[in-house]
Amino acid sequence: MMSRKGVLAVISGFSGAGKGTIVKELIKRYPEYALSVSMTTRDPRVGEEHGREYFFVSDEEFEELIKNDGLMEHAGYCKHYYGTPRKFVEDKLAQGQDVILEIEMQGALQVKEKYPQALLLFVTPPSAEELEKRLRGRGTETEEVIRQRLARSYEETQYIDKYDFLLINDDLDTCVELTHGIIEAAHDNVCRNAEFVNSIKTQLEVYK
Amino acid sequence: MMSRKGVLAVISGFSGAGKGTIVKELIKRYPEYALSVSMTTRDPRVGEEHGREYFFVSDEEFEELIKNDGLMEHAGYCKHYYGTPRKFVEDKLAQGQDVILEIEMQGALQVKEKYPQALLLFVTPPSAEELEKRLRGRGTETEEVIRQRLARSYEETQYIDKYDFLLINDDLDTCVELTHGIIEAAHDNVCRNAEFVNSIKTQLEVYK
Repeated sequence: MMSRKGVLAVISGFSGAGKGTIVKELIKRYPEYALSVSMTTRDPRVGEEHGREYFFVSDEEFEELIKNDGLMEHAGYCKHYYGTPRKFVEDKLAQGQDVILEIEMQGALQVKEKYPQALLLFVTPPSAEELEKRLRGRGTETEEVIRQRLARSYEETQYIDKYDFLLINDDLDTCVELTHGIIEAAHDNVCRNAEFVNSIKTQLEVYK
Repeated sequence: MMSRKGVLAVISGFSGAGKGTIVKELIKRYPEYALSVSMTTRDPRVGEEHGREYFFVSDEEFEELIKNDGLMEHAGYCKHYYGTPRKFVEDKLAQGQDVILEIEMQGALQVKEKYPQALLLFVTPPSAEELEKRLRGRGTETEEVIRQRLARSYEETQYIDKYDFLLINDDLDTCVELTHGIIEAAHDNVCRNAEFVNSIKTQLEVYK
């Protein structure tokens, strides 16, 4: 059989949907996944570690990477850059490891455009009511910030159909197993097996 | 949460790939699947039962069904009709049951055209050499028939990219579990959750 290539799984979702928790638990249960670490030009916060939460770099380093096509996607938020280093992801995929990328919708759609084989998953709570409840439940956000997040969630609903899978996060355990099952199944997608199909086509050509 | 609709899983594959065995084992392990039984105008063979191997009907009954759009797909082979009764499949899907349809490529592509949400799986042995070995291993076919089947397999390779998933049948147990996993994951496909996406879009609209 042919060597199995890694699947690039991109996970986004509404703010408050719980995607961070899902990814954390997924990696804990299935340490064979490679987790992509984003790069940023913002300063590290207390407790954050270079290479764990982010790769913290200077504006010059970041811009150099953009220039050399070293990022799979990048965007600016609040005067800082955020992006996904390409090399780590491509190396792991080539080695046959599945890679998890937890990024915002804007970045996810950039990745999908450049890598149509990327598997896009969107995490949502079971209802808008539940989303609002979770945002308020944090107890750390002002009413204005909560309304901004809900408005952005509405904007994001317009693009969900660009994703491959929808993860309704009702129960963490179920959701983690669904995510794993979806990534496993993706290995057998016809679009990820072009090499095999071409090979068997060539082998059978003598009988045509 | 919204009621879960059934997935229509259409399984085809090269002659000799072992799709019959996979489907049989899948239904045995997971009796919650509904297996669609095809309809034919050919005579029943010894041991075959009406409603188990096929629904055996007359030419007139079959043509009446065609006329009334009662078949999801149909084709003629060797002066006989073969087809898939629509009502059984649609009833089961509406009740939330997943339906397995084991049919030839021609029928599978007809189904996909009418039901883009159908999940198409194509079964192949791990290599052309293995395919030939399995066809010869049956010991019941003439050399001419074997060559015809291999030639048809070559023809079929041209259309594999119209399928969603490729099942490389190396080991029955693995293959059955893969098939089940693929159908499970398909429930979370964005294209099969339009109702949910529209509902959360409407709920969030107040915040835009």
